[in-house]
Amino acid sequence: MAEPVPGHCSGVTAGDALNEALAMPLVDHHCHGVRRDDLTRAAFEGLMTEGGPSPAGTTYFDTPVGLAIRCWCAPVLGLEPYATPGAYLDRRAELGAEEANRRLLRAARIADFCVDTGLTDEALLTPEEMGHLGGAWSHEIVRIESVAETVAGRGPPATAYAAEFADELAWRADRAVGLKTVVAYRIGLDFDPRPPSSREVTAAATRWLAGPGRLTDPVLLRHALWTAAEIAGDYGLPLQVHTGFGDPDLSLHRANPALLTDFIRAVPAPIVLLHCYPYVREAAYLAAVFPHVYVDVGLTVTHTAASSARVIAEVLELAPFHKILFSTDCYGLAELCHLGAHYHRQGLAAVLTERAGEWSVADAARIARLISADNARRLYFLD
Amino acid sequence: MAEPVPGHCSGVTAGDALNEALAMPLVDHHCHGVRRDDLTRAAFEGLMTEGGPSPAGTTYFDTPVGLAIRCWCAPVLGLEPYATPGAYLDRRAELGAEEANRRLLRAARIADFCVDTGLTDEALLTPEEMGHLGGAWSHEIVRIESVAETVAGRGPPATAYAAEFADELAWRADRAVGLKTVVAYRIGLDFDPRPPSSREVTAAATRWLAGPGRLTDPVLLRHALWTAAEIAGDYGLPLQVHTGFGDPDLSLHRANPALLTDFIRAVPAPIVLLHCYPYVREAAYLAAVFPHVYVDVGLTVTHTAASSARVIAEVLELAPFHKILFSTDCYGLAELCHLGAHYHRQGLAAVLTERAGEWSVADAARIARLISADNARRLYFLD
Amino acid sequence: MAEPVPGHCSGVTAGDALNEALAMPLVDHHCHGVRRDDLTRAAFEGLMTEGGPSPAGTTYFDTPVGLAIRCWCAPVLGLEPYATPGAYLDRRAELGAEEANRRLLRAARIADFCVDTGLTDEALLTPEEMGHLGGAWSHEIVRIESVAETVAGRGPPATAYAAEFADELAWRADRAVGLKTVVAYRIGLDFDPRPPSSREVTAAATRWLAGPGRLTDPVLLRHALWTAAEIAGDYGLPLQVHTGFGDPDLSLHRANPALLTDFIRAVPAPIVLLHCYPYVREAAYLAAVFPHVYVDVGLTVTHTAASSARVIAEVLELAPFHKILFSTDCYGLAELCHLGAHYHRQGLAAVLTERAGEWSVADAARIARLISADNARRLYFLD
Repeated sequence: MAEPVPGHCSGVTAGDALNEALAMPLVDHHCHGVRRDDLTRAAFEGLMTEGGPSPAGTTYFDTPVGLAIRCWCAPVLGLEPYATPGAYLDRRAELGAEEANRRLLRAARIADFCVDTGLTDEALLTPEEMGHLGGAWSHEIVRIESVAETVAGRGPPATAYAAEFADELAWRADRAVGLKTVVAYRIGLDFDPRPPSSREVTAAATRWLAGPGRLTDPVLLRHALWTAAEIAGDYGLPLQVHTGFGDPDLSLHRANPALLTDFIRAVPAPIVLLHCYPYVREAAYLAAVFPHVYVDVGLTVTHTAASSARVIAEVLELAPFHKILFSTDCYGLAELCHLGAHYHRQGLAAVLTERAGEWSVADAARIARLISADNARRLYFLD
Repeated sequence: MAEPVPGHCSGVTAGDALNEALAMPLVDHHCHGVRRDDLTRAAFEGLMTEGGPSPAGTTYFDTPVGLAIRCWCAPVLGLEPYATPGAYLDRRAELGAEEANRRLLRAARIADFCVDTGLTDEALLTPEEMGHLGGAWSHEIVRIESVAETVAGRGPPATAYAAEFADELAWRADRAVGLKTVVAYRIGLDFDPRPPSSREVTAAATRWLAGPGRLTDPVLLRHALWTAAEIAGDYGLPLQVHTGFGDPDLSLHRANPALLTDFIRAVPAPIVLLHCYPYVREAAYLAAVFPHVYVDVGLTVTHTAASSARVIAEVLELAPFHKILFSTDCYGLAELCHLGAHYHRQGLAAVLTERAGEWSVADAARIARLISADNARRLYFLD
Repeated sequence: MAEPVPGHCSGVTAGDALNEALAMPLVDHHCHGVRRDDLTRAAFEGLMTEGGPSPAGTTYFDTPVGLAIRCWCAPVLGLEPYATPGAYLDRRAELGAEEANRRLLRAARIADFCVDTGLTDEALLTPEEMGHLGGAWSHEIVRIESVAETVAGRGPPATAYAAEFADELAWRADRAVGLKTVVAYRIGLDFDPRPPSSREVTAAATRWLAGPGRLTDPVLLRHALWTAAEIAGDYGLPLQVHTGFGDPDLSLHRANPALLTDFIRAVPAPIVLLHCYPYVREAAYLAAVFPHVYVDVGLTVTHTAASSARVIAEVLELAPFHKILFSTDCYGLAELCHLGAHYHRQGLAAVLTERAGEWSVADAARIARLISADNARRLYFLD
């Protein structure tokens, strides 16, 4: 590993060219803002997990990501590795959220943050603030369903909803580098892959606009997706899709990216499969056979932590090297940004080192650059 | 490995604190009785597998569990490792079933057996006998469907079936540490997650009681599950669910624990996902996001044998350490108890050793104690 | 590895008996013809992938199989490992297709090719030519759907279709060692597992024969499968089933072999699950519990290339050693034959070496022989 780590946590060694490639600043093509405020232990633990509260007498520090924070983030805050949870949170409070965030975001060495702005919590840093604090460029990823909810909140007539949504989304897309859908959370990925008719959309909009709120109507979700797919096609923007694990709102088996196959066949825009776990191999296959499909295991890498090299190895089983992207998918905690970047570098180094002999160091280094930054720069037109 | 093994089969080394944790007696939170009688080769081979007879000219000794018996069980019976199948079975016959069972159960170093009593074969040891022979405490796990079949066998009027089942199950639960369902075998896990209405139950009971036998009616299976879930909630008992692989009665893709998601959301009792293979990551995810879900890869570890460390590693990718349990799920052969315990210790040691540097030895040792015994003691109130 | 490899690409070492077993000529129980003609770069890249063309500015040489060709095939054509794609294709053109094919097929050291003749492209070598060029025996595998399409092309009356198809298939089967279905591509594996009625078949044949072409009618596909299953049962021929990944015509989640469970239960003939990825564990499970089911990860091994040892390890987690088969599933490129054989030997050696100590060298060598050749000889009656 090119990454110098304080304390005695161990890393992976590899050839010099490979080290250099792995040390390069990363393009984080999908993340969220981190919390600007100081956090109680309960709030911190809540942000460590995609799930509900841990049972009485237990703690989310007893998870892979919990141990990873103590091992890899503690030194960034000036503590020894293996600091206790209490000592870690005390030190974090002592430094204050801003300084802790700055240290952790910078430790990740990100060159570009592409920030999903679909969560409107004021306590989250904006894309500009993420860039400023992390010493990086920032770009926006627009969440489709949030735009639909914003438009609905303005109370348009049902007959005008489709046009107003398309206008608003095009206006937002024009200022962004990509679009994103969370349809996996709302109705699963086993939706009818065809676009709904105008009449169906107006009827569904009539029902929704009578009491707008979270968009869960399948017709309007499909309509939003298809509108987004057309805009993405026109603007040359990738369409990011949440797939695989996440919080307990979703049903895991209905978030299998393979369920998107018919939709993928029909859509002209580039499609980026996010997270994917445990359907990593399914996603890598889709990226292998559909020229416009890309794959990323952000979030998965962070949460599987010490086991993440295995997940990265699974992506590399079948996916073309020009189709794999890196993200941290950090949300709330800057720790998750540092860990996402750390485990990406460590896991990729481990896999590429394992291939030594079979792949040349030059090839391995080139593959590391493609996955860590170059593929995202090409796909999102970041230069 | 802390475990001294006769002969030259190799093990895994780790730090002293870790060794101590791995040497500790285990809580086997899910197993069945082993056969008290001497076994022919055909009977022995039939109990080595979840499947049907092996094709002509082949033997179930040519499986991972077959080689494991020759490597790890042969020394327990006083033979060299790699004993031939014939020599192994001759030696077993020479010792007699009781002595072979005693040696193998004790070699497993189990502190507590939680025995599923749903299989009523007289040739199986009772929980008390398992404890006595294995030098362990014993507890009962009550199989829901067997209780329903017992009640049906008494021939109650259909209108009284629901109440009689609830009374009988509550009476049994009061003497047990947990309940278990095999609904995966009967109708798969993709059942309607809502409880059936009383009218539906009475109608279904009318049909069933006309010629009672194996319970396969979906309405009555859902009713039994919901009755059990309520009793488990009231008594604070975990509800064990067979998921993943098993004998060919089940359809594997319909035993995916993710299919339980809506049921899990609705049920108040702790739910323990058993076996899980190959849906180990799905099960670990459910344990990660639902506070009342637990995961165990018993049976899987035994049958994957020399490959089991990989399976254990997959559980540890995402599941919180306070949500993972150990079991042997042995049935029929005491060999399966010894192997389940052996591969649990070996696999856990391999994974924790691989984490050395990233996790402290003290943390690794604590995690080993949680998974091997402490989580089960807490969940089943064994102290 | 017993295989001497020119240049400095690294291999895996193992005990002598094991080496010998791994060096033995293989029985490739499922492959296709390779192209007899010289190939342009575009044609070559098209045959390197199961997918569509790679996006502008990218190349399929940036895939695991692309790097594998440069590492392992370049030396067979007399180049250094890591030759550039351009240098490799220049050298291939210089040698000419026939010499390149001869070198690569012979490098694979195949004793028997069982060739699926369902693709009728004149540019593909016939089974006899594959054998002649590769220094091996050759046998035919008859593709069921192609036979149905041939019969339909003759324009029989709809009422005679079923009998003519059965006659033709029986005639073809009599000269072949196995049958194969690609129903996964046509309608997925989640088809109604029951045979259709004669009336349904005649009605469907009436529709199809009005304008025959590619067979996609579910009734006729089920009829073809059941007819084949009966003939296979009568003749003692295995029925090969494409499962898992392939080209983008299929929907991956509908190619899960577990979906075949009810069909498997009903069919008397031996069933061989091909490819399987990523449902390798599901397939291994089916082979473990159904006496007439076999498993093979050909195609997968070639395309996962440097990662293929992990896939082979997954098959060996649960499948009985007498139920695992080897194939290259090469198609079009003789490179895919060499790589399939190479990674089979390398992956099997890696897994068996990892088991050293737990499995004796004699057992490991015997398992290698079973998987590499003996199981196929027994199942296909090749001697």
